[in-house]
Amino acid sequence: MNSGAGIVDYIKGQAAWIERELERSIPAEWSMPSALREAMLYSLMAGGKRLRPILVLASAEALGGNSEDALPVALAVEMIHTYSLIHDDLPAMDNDDFRRGKPTSHKVFGEAMAILAGDALLTHAFYSVVQSARQRDVAGDIIADIVEELARLSGAPGMVGGQAADMQGEQGVTKLEELEYIHLHKTSDLVVFSVKAGGRIAGASREQLAALERFGTCLGLAFQIQDDILDLTGDEVKLGKPVQSDVKQQKVTYPYFIGLEASQAKVEELTREAREAIETAGFPAPERLLELADYLMKRDH
Amino acid sequence: MNSGAGIVDYIKGQAAWIERELERSIPAEWSMPSALREAMLYSLMAGGKRLRPILVLASAEALGGNSEDALPVALAVEMIHTYSLIHDDLPAMDNDDFRRGKPTSHKVFGEAMAILAGDALLTHAFYSVVQSARQRDVAGDIIADIVEELARLSGAPGMVGGQAADMQGEQGVTKLEELEYIHLHKTSDLVVFSVKAGGRIAGASREQLAALERFGTCLGLAFQIQDDILDLTGDEVKLGKPVQSDVKQQKVTYPYFIGLEASQAKVEELTREAREAIETAGFPAPERLLELADYLMKRDH
Repeated sequence: MNSGAGIVDYIKGQAAWIERELERSIPAEWSMPSALREAMLYSLMAGGKRLRPILVLASAEALGGNSEDALPVALAVEMIHTYSLIHDDLPAMDNDDFRRGKPTSHKVFGEAMAILAGDALLTHAFYSVVQSARQRDVAGDIIADIVEELARLSGAPGMVGGQAADMQGEQGVTKLEELEYIHLHKTSDLVVFSVKAGGRIAGASREQLAALERFGTCLGLAFQIQDDILDLTGDEVKLGKPVQSDVKQQKVTYPYFIGLEASQAKVEELTREAREAIETAGFPAPERLLELADYLMKRDH
Repeated sequence: MNSGAGIVDYIKGQAAWIERELERSIPAEWSMPSALREAMLYSLMAGGKRLRPILVLASAEALGGNSEDALPVALAVEMIHTYSLIHDDLPAMDNDDFRRGKPTSHKVFGEAMAILAGDALLTHAFYSVVQSARQRDVAGDIIADIVEELARLSGAPGMVGGQAADMQGEQGVTKLEELEYIHLHKTSDLVVFSVKAGGRIAGASREQLAALERFGTCLGLAFQIQDDILDLTGDEVKLGKPVQSDVKQQKVTYPYFIGLEASQAKVEELTREAREAIETAGFPAPERLLELADYLMKRDH
């Protein structure tokens, strides 16, 4: 897709494709209460960077694979990300009324339906993974591997564990290592899943999967530190949300521990490390993955 | 297991096996916040009939299969059932402080951790399904089928959809068909999954899977109507919960619509239909499945 375009156009094109497919990802013939379907689609279609599904597709392309084979897995990772936002926004969790300028799910549909829409999206992600076998003939053994990785990296030892640590940390994260644990699991784990799953579908070797894992870990951490930095220095209009919210909510961040300059240097170092992992692993078409890493480092929103 | 014993001993033996395995179903080497692991295990080990996992194992046995091959799937279905109870009990849903005489998850761990423990168990169910391939060499294609069925029957078109209809129905279920929709999805769908998945692992034919589907649908509905009946006529001590709670909560039930006697007749008819589906489909060892259907019809708790 868009192989000659610049990275910004590439991202736009892939995001548009992903959004078209997300919109029809819940089979029309499935009977369910209409409010549940609406709540699922409301959050799925509420915008966002679509970073994780784009990484799934770019990783498959880096291996010379067909990104259509990886599309159901790309949709799955966006469903997981979306459910995690719905549940994070609940009154018992972060109690947010708005996300990206829109009322959060529980403000629109009520708390009970928001909980259920999150549960339904989480569950539907695993349905979507299997569609890579149904629609594109990906082998059952590869599907089983991807299901196992998704469950691990988005579950208790992964994203949910990071979120649980974050909730507990609100009573006081006092060490950089604790913050890093939260960032690695809350953010990096799903990025790691994304690039490895895209690679797995495109036939990555064991060494290439290890390179993708290092790439995803560094990129996910860089992304989260950049988020911390933008919350301090960013433009409210570009970000689409109030700045300095971390300070106001007394959330500790990377800049809080090591300062702004050292945080910026860390983002650059992690991006370099991410690039290096890919550059030395002999991928046939790594350009988009490398460009995405640079793009994320330089982003202002 | 226990092939010569009576059905009560069989149930006890299988439930004890399932509980031993549930207790070690979250890998000890996984790092996660200790409160998250505690909350997951607290609800997993809080008792209950273990009906769904027992049906997975009995169904594999009915096909002449090895129930150990089906064990990871049996654990998975109990994880799904357990997460659904944790989320159902939340203040925004049924707001229950006790279940089976024990404080509910959010009363012990707080609402945020209860939501996350539910999310983690839901996710972990899919990890567990894949362990049938890792530990017992079940083929990847069968795993992919089971993942797809579990996601469908426990997701928006299945159990979560039934729960959403139930939440909405509290504003007034006025027809028996609406109540049946709720029962079929909230309860039967996971029973259907259980018997079909057990059969699938043991190599059931298409016709045998159809028979198991009919068996599960009838059995699940009979089970739920029997629950409604016991809430009216049961013994509080045997049930371990207050009776007439449906009346007090103004929940409509089968007896509300068609009366107690017709409801009892319906349970018997559904049980007969369930048995018939199995008896006519040529299973090599159907005894335990048939005995389970009779046992459930006659239960007093």
